[in-house]
Amino acid sequence: MQNHSKLLDIGVIGLGVMGKNLALNIADNHYRVAAFDLDNDKVNALLAQERQERLTGQPQRITGCHNLSEMLSNLTRPRILVLSVPAGEPVDGVCQSLIDAGIEADDIVIDTGNSLWTDTVAREAHYAGQFIFFSCAVSGGEMGARFGPSLMPSGDINAWEHIKPIWQAIAAKVDATTGLPIERQEPGNPVTEGEPCTTYIGPAGAGHYVKMVHNGIEYADMQLICEAYQLLSDTCGMSAIEVSAVFSRWNQGSLNSYLMEISAEVLAQVDPLTDKPLVEMILDKAGQKGTGLWTAVSSLQIGTPAPTIAEAVYARAMSTQKTQRQQLSQCLAGPSKAALIGSERTTFIEQLENALYCAKIACYAQGFQLMAMMATERGWQLDFAEIAKIWRAGCIIRAKFLQSISEAYQVAQTQGVELSNLLMAESFSTALSTKQLDWRSAVAQAVLSGVPVPCVGSALAYYDSYRCDTLPANLLQGQRDFFGAHSFERVDTPVGEKYHLNWSHKPRTLVKL
Amino acid sequence: MQNHSKLLDIGVIGLGVMGKNLALNIADNHYRVAAFDLDNDKVNALLAQERQERLTGQPQRITGCHNLSEMLSNLTRPRILVLSVPAGEPVDGVCQSLIDAGIEADDIVIDTGNSLWTDTVAREAHYAGQFIFFSCAVSGGEMGARFGPSLMPSGDINAWEHIKPIWQAIAAKVDATTGLPIERQEPGNPVTEGEPCTTYIGPAGAGHYVKMVHNGIEYADMQLICEAYQLLSDTCGMSAIEVSAVFSRWNQGSLNSYLMEISAEVLAQVDPLTDKPLVEMILDKAGQKGTGLWTAVSSLQIGTPAPTIAEAVYARAMSTQKTQRQQLSQCLAGPSKAALIGSERTTFIEQLENALYCAKIACYAQGFQLMAMMATERGWQLDFAEIAKIWRAGCIIRAKFLQSISEAYQVAQTQGVELSNLLMAESFSTALSTKQLDWRSAVAQAVLSGVPVPCVGSALAYYDSYRCDTLPANLLQGQRDFFGAHSFERVDTPVGEKYHLNWSHKPRTLVKL
Repeated sequence: MQNHSKLLDIGVIGLGVMGKNLALNIADNHYRVAAFDLDNDKVNALLAQERQERLTGQPQRITGCHNLSEMLSNLTRPRILVLSVPAGEPVDGVCQSLIDAGIEADDIVIDTGNSLWTDTVAREAHYAGQFIFFSCAVSGGEMGARFGPSLMPSGDINAWEHIKPIWQAIAAKVDATTGLPIERQEPGNPVTEGEPCTTYIGPAGAGHYVKMVHNGIEYADMQLICEAYQLLSDTCGMSAIEVSAVFSRWNQGSLNSYLMEISAEVLAQVDPLTDKPLVEMILDKAGQKGTGLWTAVSSLQIGTPAPTIAEAVYARAMSTQKTQRQQLSQCLAGPSKAALIGSERTTFIEQLENALYCAKIACYAQGFQLMAMMATERGWQLDFAEIAKIWRAGCIIRAKFLQSISEAYQVAQTQGVELSNLLMAESFSTALSTKQLDWRSAVAQAVLSGVPVPCVGSALAYYDSYRCDTLPANLLQGQRDFFGAHSFERVDTPVGEKYHLNWSHKPRTLVKL
Repeated sequence: MQNHSKLLDIGVIGLGVMGKNLALNIADNHYRVAAFDLDNDKVNALLAQERQERLTGQPQRITGCHNLSEMLSNLTRPRILVLSVPAGEPVDGVCQSLIDAGIEADDIVIDTGNSLWTDTVAREAHYAGQFIFFSCAVSGGEMGARFGPSLMPSGDINAWEHIKPIWQAIAAKVDATTGLPIERQEPGNPVTEGEPCTTYIGPAGAGHYVKMVHNGIEYADMQLICEAYQLLSDTCGMSAIEVSAVFSRWNQGSLNSYLMEISAEVLAQVDPLTDKPLVEMILDKAGQKGTGLWTAVSSLQIGTPAPTIAEAVYARAMSTQKTQRQQLSQCLAGPSKAALIGSERTTFIEQLENALYCAKIACYAQGFQLMAMMATERGWQLDFAEIAKIWRAGCIIRAKFLQSISEAYQVAQTQGVELSNLLMAESFSTALSTKQLDWRSAVAQAVLSGVPVPCVGSALAYYDSYRCDTLPANLLQGQRDFFGAHSFERVDTPVGEKYHLNWSHKPRTLVKL
């Protein structure tokens, strides 16, 4: 509950796109905000926007500050300061300025940028005693920040109790009955009903790690949709608007998601300059901001397979090599192409819908397993049912699907079993088992048609690998023992017992190490 | 040429498997070696082995030392010291001990361990003025070290001139006419003819980076063979010995390689304990030592696609999740299986041979492109024709195939064109174009049969992505601009011009940024 003194409730430092919209969102929820940016024009722009949007009879709730000392003296104690500055150096720059301005030991600084989670861990330790360095990863982009993002706070649990009411107020909301987002984007009229998309994630770093994996999943989810687009274009000869119609239809079913929805919108968009489909005028070189790559790197380092996420990162890297692709498209042969027609085409579209759903399950399974591995390594108690819940609205990967994931974890909790991989949840293993033949058909069609499906294909290989009681890693261990005396375990002796065959001397003898 | 004083030519510190065999190899080549290990038993074991192997009339060439001061006083100046200790802390531990023992500024310390290349860069700078920290990555395992490894030296070019004669003597040799290894594994009778598998790679770190990528390729190459093994077992119902016969036959053709050869040997091996095929008694959990993972991480960080290498690392991670696989194999459905027979089987085996060859080209293309990217970033002048040459013998990925890669780079050099990707070499693009239909058939067969082929499959997606003048990253950029205002370039405006569509306000307008 906001305070009734003359002091303000919360400070926002950094009024770029995210900071500005967070400030407006907080003010909409009746908290009084002190706002500061090194660029005073940004402060004025924020104040102007508040004035413009404010409803009749509502008081001004945002106060501009000229410096951090002024901000600190305007805030109630313990001060809550939201940092919205670029990840890296700037975060520490502001922290130092706050120390210089007289921040106190129980004041709370919340980093809301896309910081690398290990930096967050280091910062909490580094600033301890000077102030409480807390962090909150934010998903949902500009509109999310303005009208309800998904918020992943982590750090000092006592600090969280101070922040919690504000966070629950500004977060996106989900209808508890349907599990769907409550969408209302009206200034001055925030959504106050429903389940807020924020939950305390865990100790320092946990929230940013979870957000990082969210972004890794997002990379894969986006690429899966892109592969479906290329397949429908190339194998069915569909125009962008036709693919848009397919996506709109899919968005009514199990593939319902924000990303599917906006993909249909993008594909339907006409270019204002040429009147052609806009998508055909957009250069096919995709940028990245690092979080997808961090997710893939983390999965490699911790040793849990997340191939579909890595393939999505590589697909972006591949997209940037436009010149090479233009050259190679001239000299590398592909299969002859004949567009699918009639019932073949109808069947393929159905298969692809199921393939996409299966691949999506596999990619979420990879992400959740990665979080579980890191939680074990770091001693975090992550509540995956809650994490799936707070991704149901506000964030980029929001989808009905997240409700099913949350339920799968709840069922496992109820049954007292650990869900070490989402593929083990009966709801998903059943869906996969039912749809897997379509998945195979779609991937085979892509492969035979010459359309690259790195993510849909790698997700299937992930699924099929988990179906293998025995993988050919036995041969691999034999190879390693042959050339490097790396030793191997046997299937008929206790775990941990190592053996080596003396490959270079005949008769070869088996040595127990 | 070795010196004729009473002083010894070279010191070897660390007499584990690699250090011991390097010392014997150097001694075979008539250099006099001072040998030290913290464990004096290892010194004695080495001296005993030299005594046992020494041919009649040959002098003793290895002298044991009790400490590093004794070693330094026994060596001619500038001293050349070979470090064969585990990567990481131990390297710096020995370096500090050498400083304490009185090493001098122009003495040369050669780190031959599997060090992370960035550590090597840091060490060269750190020890400058105290001694010359040089490094040499070594490939070939135990037998390579003993009778001829592939050696990838890098660092101070003047130090290299001192080391070069010894290195050229102990390296593996290739017959200049055939491009094939000259294999002779006889103590006291080293191979002195042919082209030595060592060349100066570049500044500090370059050699270890190149070796790291070598290992990444090795991971993928091994996994490709394993996937072929599983496919032949599962889709053709072949026994291990039958697969061994197929591999032996393939080893006579374009797939000829050390790894193919030893895979055939491993599959033919009978388990001494049970008389069953050994491979079926080896537990299918594959370990790793980090270099494959480092390669995948480097490719992600530098932004060049190396999906087949990453998939190989993930395949090892997947192999370690045996318990999960055993559980999931019970609840995830696959296709019904009917073994291929008759002409279908014969055709499939032929297709698979071509698929493996194509996937192999793609995975080497990824590795070489990664080295090229890093070389550009670091300002290294890497000679890829030479690097391919020194991998023709001694190392784990040695294969006739490397001769073709070397020739492709030579042709490009002659024509004055830059070969930014191996797929652009006419020899390879022609081979791929000829075999790609078989590649597709084999992958489609695997996908429809439920056999995971993460590497063969991802290599095909890599190939097909490069065949795409336009990738669906245009949709991806549209998605990113929609939810995050990330902007995009257009196909009809100059490179670098950024555009954003105001997606949230209709009518949507295009803004040039």
